[in-house]
Amino acid sequence: MWKLNEVHENLVLSKWGELLRRHPTQIGALHETDAELVPLDDDRVLALTIDAVSEEVAAGLYQDPRTVGRVAILASVSDLAAVGADPVGLLVATTIPEHGFDEIQQGLGVGIREAADRCGMFVLGGDTNEGDQLEVTVAAAGTLPREEVITRVGSSPGDRVFVSGPVGLGGALAASNLLRLGGLDEADFFPQPRLAEGQVVRRHGSACMDTSDGLIATLDQLARLNGVRFEIDVSFDSFLHVAAAQIAADSGIGAFPFAASYHGEFELVFTIAAATVDTFIQAASAIGWTPIEIGRVKDGEGLGSPEGDIDGAHIRNLLHDVGGDVGEYARRLIQRGNE
Amino acid sequence: MWKLNEVHENLVLSKWGELLRRHPTQIGALHETDAELVPLDDDRVLALTIDAVSEEVAAGLYQDPRTVGRVAILASVSDLAAVGADPVGLLVATTIPEHGFDEIQQGLGVGIREAADRCGMFVLGGDTNEGDQLEVTVAAAGTLPREEVITRVGSSPGDRVFVSGPVGLGGALAASNLLRLGGLDEADFFPQPRLAEGQVVRRHGSACMDTSDGLIATLDQLARLNGVRFEIDVSFDSFLHVAAAQIAADSGIGAFPFAASYHGEFELVFTIAAATVDTFIQAASAIGWTPIEIGRVKDGEGLGSPEGDIDGAHIRNLLHDVGGDVGEYARRLIQRGNE
Repeated sequence: MWKLNEVHENLVLSKWGELLRRHPTQIGALHETDAELVPLDDDRVLALTIDAVSEEVAAGLYQDPRTVGRVAILASVSDLAAVGADPVGLLVATTIPEHGFDEIQQGLGVGIREAADRCGMFVLGGDTNEGDQLEVTVAAAGTLPREEVITRVGSSPGDRVFVSGPVGLGGALAASNLLRLGGLDEADFFPQPRLAEGQVVRRHGSACMDTSDGLIATLDQLARLNGVRFEIDVSFDSFLHVAAAQIAADSGIGAFPFAASYHGEFELVFTIAAATVDTFIQAASAIGWTPIEIGRVKDGEGLGSPEGDIDGAHIRNLLHDVGGDVGEYARRLIQRGNE
Repeated sequence: MWKLNEVHENLVLSKWGELLRRHPTQIGALHETDAELVPLDDDRVLALTIDAVSEEVAAGLYQDPRTVGRVAILASVSDLAAVGADPVGLLVATTIPEHGFDEIQQGLGVGIREAADRCGMFVLGGDTNEGDQLEVTVAAAGTLPREEVITRVGSSPGDRVFVSGPVGLGGALAASNLLRLGGLDEADFFPQPRLAEGQVVRRHGSACMDTSDGLIATLDQLARLNGVRFEIDVSFDSFLHVAAAQIAADSGIGAFPFAASYHGEFELVFTIAAATVDTFIQAASAIGWTPIEIGRVKDGEGLGSPEGDIDGAHIRNLLHDVGGDVGEYARRLIQRGNE
């Protein structure tokens, strides 16, 4: 079966969908948008999204509160970027351990501030709690014209598949911090938010989603939602982030684990109808941006690559299937990449 | 000194204010609004708020996930109500322990759904994480006309002070669950959201704030922010929620601890210029609502009551000052009430 609910994460979300009622005028069904889209009374749509950073802290992926603050902002802003929204503002809810509270608040504040600055956004307000486990939850709001709404759904066979930039930076941090392969300090994990690029994509693209769960998960989800096949026709090496490429080369584990890692970054994956590609490339160029074409949308299902078909559900369920054992998860991704 | 930063909670918030930059067109300064207010491009303002429920769970105040879900929704919606917003939608981020995940998600879902239904609102989307400590963070969005914005600031000497309804339900739950005085099951803790009432207050009031941190904290904060004195001229008994009144009578601890408890409910405290009171009462009556007048705004500072002056900073800092010991905190509030 080629279904959304083959993937554990989709199952949990579908359960919420059963428990709660859907807003009657919300745009897109469950799973279909990176940020929630609801029409305002005028010709605009409000984009809203929320994202918590906690599992990454518990797993040891981020050790500096500054990284936690920075990534929490970027993760939510990236969801706004994926729907092409013009930013309005941010809210930040923090749970901070009592021990070291002041220092942690200070570190979070620096990270939140530098990420918000880079996005040209502001924290409007928030909520602060004490608790055992550091957690930062960020909500982001934006708006966009009703006629320019883009969701994860809209790809058709013949469309070209693009990424907004090199991928694998998220996997590089995981490899550095969790597998102790070195090569990327978490202070240097500062992915570029893609707000301006998303605004171009909303005008020219047929579907868009960010790579926060990794490139493979993103391609797999888009293929499932659109009922199509994504055929990647370039090698993962060819659009790997330089930090990931360096670790891949030094350690000999290759590019695949970086494309597959569930710790992604905040690039956009999107499709453009073939007839629109030239116009799109011109619009991208006008903001100084060079998107990377990586493949095509085809009839069928699943993910194809020059190295053969990729079982997206298997990869997306892997961490869950190994009981959350990150080391075993990584070992299997690396093994798969070397097959 | 009669300052905001005499209060520990205000200090933590002021620290965020030092660390982060303020949105250039945001309405109201730090501390001055229950929900963040930012102008949209038309004649409306977007109201955004975020609130996490975690400390209450850790303290044992809510033991059923259904209560956690319900209160998390009500807390954020109440902030929308305090700025008089017309609701747009909700976002929910949850951290759920791995053990019992499905049952907890189910319970949360029921609570979230029943609270959202009662508010006439919908959950647009969210984020689900696994973690040791159950936590539910809700962001809420609404809009209101630019010319009808109300904040916590605007009270003048001569204004009348109102509450939207009886207070002490939050304290009643705390007394029942933490002091084991019985009388209120958490299944019955379902405070009424005050969205419609807030929309009346935004048109006629001079300042408004909700009682989520308890009545005394709310009055104290409003007095500080407006540089005035609040003189309560009716006894706390006279507007105590029936559930609190019953526990107060049965246990002999009186009304004061219920008004002072930092576990509040979601009533609104607001001020109305004397000349506007009749018009306001008519508008309230038109929606079937009978607000309760409890006192007056005066020149000066602090809180007055028929039983004498109340040291708001002392009461608001008490839990922090006793090192978070909820039993000792309650004992001191009860002692203060019996003096």
